[in-house]
Formats: sequence, structure tokens, C-alpha cells
Amino acid sequence: MNEHFRPVASEHASRLINHGPTVLVTSADGGRRNVMAAAWSMPVEFTPPRVAVVIDKRTYTRELITASGAFGLCIPGAALVDLTHAVGSASGRDIDKFARHGIAARTGPALGVPLIESGCAAWLECRLIREPHTEDAYDTCFAEVVAAAADERIFANGHWSFRDDNLALQTIHHLGGGNFVRAGGVLRAQPL
Amino acid sequence: MNEHFRPVASEHASRLINHGPTVLVTSADGGRRNVMAAAWSMPVEFTPPRVAVVIDKRTYTRELITASGAFGLCIPGAALVDLTHAVGSASGRDIDKFARHGIAARTGPALGVPLIESGCAAWLECRLIREPHTEDAYDTCFAEVVAAAADERIFANGHWSFRDDNLALQTIHHLGGGNFVRAGGVLRAQPL
Repeated sequence: MNEHFRPVASEHASRLINHGPTVLVTSADGGRRNVMAAAWSMPVEFTPPRVAVVIDKRTYTRELITASGAFGLCIPGAALVDLTHAVGSASGRDIDKFARHGIAARTGPALGVPLIESGCAAWLECRLIREPHTEDAYDTCFAEVVAAAADERIFANGHWSFRDDNLALQTIHHLGGGNFVRAGGVLRAQPL
Repeated sequence: MNEHFRPVASEHASRLINHGPTVLVTSADGGRRNVMAAAWSMPVEFTPPRVAVVIDKRTYTRELITASGAFGLCIPGAALVDLTHAVGSASGRDIDKFARHGIAARTGPALGVPLIESGCAAWLECRLIREPHTEDAYDTCFAEVVAAAADERIFANGHWSFRDDNLALQTIHHLGGGNFVRAGGVLRAQPL
């Protein structure tokens, strides 16, 4: 548990991934657990909060999600860029990546999914919506967000706040090959 | 046509939206055309390049895409933040947003979709893959990318290059309510 984490209201949960951050997908089934990185996720609905995430059918994560019907999306801050790349480059079939990298996980309040708070800006605990065709044809898994929380130093009252004093928590966005960009300065659109 | 645009190889096309930028969705059918902003898109496959994008079934864009079976994803640079918000806030049923905002469009080489180059970093011309269930249940449209191009000043040889000399072309990521973050400094992951 991280003292800075606060629950995020259901109607604000989709906003946590609105801007396209790379996420850590966490999963567990029985005594097995895993974490992998995923660049391909998006909201599909605000109310109820629903998301889609692409998880290759050959991965250990997909096996655990299919078995448990649940997963977590944890949003790593910039300080976790090396860890994010590392857990995206090795299979959990071979090692317990939580133990290997000393990753602390809490248990999700709704579904018992392992969730990462240390170094992360937020997490979403998700219940898989079974869609066999899209899971098979596009590796695309739809899910409903049943709980969410965020570090209040960067997301509070339903809004992100990117500032000079929270650089380490700012979201990262994968360009490919281990290169990320950090969500940078805020641009406020003006009416045309 | 923009002199800086170069074709992007099929196997690199999905990488154009790998990091979660807000996109402009362009569409046309017969003499009708439209452009809207969308924060919710993602790749679902590298080869063949396929994408998913959420487009509300009540929108004019969705009507044109359903009729034509095609759309464009144009990736606005930071200089277009106001335009992006503007075309995301008005319906094309009421006005021709290209004319209203003086947006120049070229015709897509594969499907004839209107595509925006001026101020954009890249575009993808997409053929809708009909998926009635996910279109209805999640407003999620799957598509195959049949052509792509990018401004060589920011994407070349299959790679993004975010530098101090191309700030105006750097991608924008919508936080909600007209607030965007620009893809900022590059972080290169180091092995753990």
C-alpha cells in the first residue's frame, strides 16, 4: 500500500489511460502471478468504465487472464522505465518477475489482482468481458474497470497534473525498441 | 501534398500510433467528408498492420466510415493542438470542418480518403474490417492499414525522432477537457 494512493471515481477511471501511456499488465491465478508491459491499450467507454488491451495469445499473462477472468493495468511513472522494458522483454513462464525485480504488489480490492503502487501513477483493476472472437482474431481483450486508484501527487479530483515536482511519476509512452517518451509539458487548447 | 512526407513501410505503420497519440479521424463518402479528433486508438497487430479506434456510433464520422468502409488516422503535431480540440468539439453534420478551418486535404493513394499533412507528423489510410458486434457493443472499429506516410523530419527509417528542432510536429496526448501533453524528452531504457 502506498500512502499517496487514493481511490479514483468510476467515471474518471478511463481517463487514467486516455492519453496512451504504456501500462504494466498484472495477473494471477491460483499461486501463479505475472506482470508484463503493454503499449497497446485504450479506453472504450467512460460509463461504465471499459477498456481494451492487446495481449498476445502466446503470453503467460494471457493464460492467467483467461483462467482468472481478471487483470490489472498499472501505469508506471518515468522512474520505472527500465523496469517496464525489463518486464516486457522476459516471459513469466521462466521467472517470477515480481521476485526477480523486487516488485511489491498489493492485492486488488475487488478481484484480488496483484497491483503495483510503488513508482506507479495509478492502477485499474479490471474484469475481463469474454469476447472469444476479438480475443482470437486481434488479441484484443475487453474489460470493465471495477476499481481504480491513483497517486494524488499526479492525479487528483479526476484530473492529471503534470508538473516539475512530479517528473518521476509522469507517464511513459513506448516508441519501440526500448525508447520511450515521457508525457511532457501541458498544452491547453484555445478556442478557434 | 507536403514535401517532407515519405511513405512508411507496412511493417512500421503500427509504430506511428504505438505511443498513444491523439489522432484526427478523416472520412468521406460521395461528396461528404469529415474530420474529428479521437483519443482512443491503438495498434492491434504489426504484420499485417492493423489498428482499433473508438468512434461513437452517433457521430457523422461513423456514418461516413460505415458507408465507405475506409478512414484515415492523421497524427497532429503540437502546433495543431487548438485545431485538434476544435474538430473534436463540433459535428460535421453542421459544418464542413475542412472549409471552416481552412484544412488542406490530399487524397489517399489507396482508398481515396482525405488525409491531412500540413501540421501533421504522419497519416495512416485504413480499410475497415467489418466487425458488427464490437462496433455495436464498444464503438470499436478494427481496420487494416493499407498505406502510411510520415514527415521525415520526425519519423524516418521506421523510427520516431523527438528533438528540440521538431517541437511543432511532436505528438499530443489528450488528458481530457482540452488539456494535452506533448510527447516530451526521450527516455532510453537500460537493461536491469
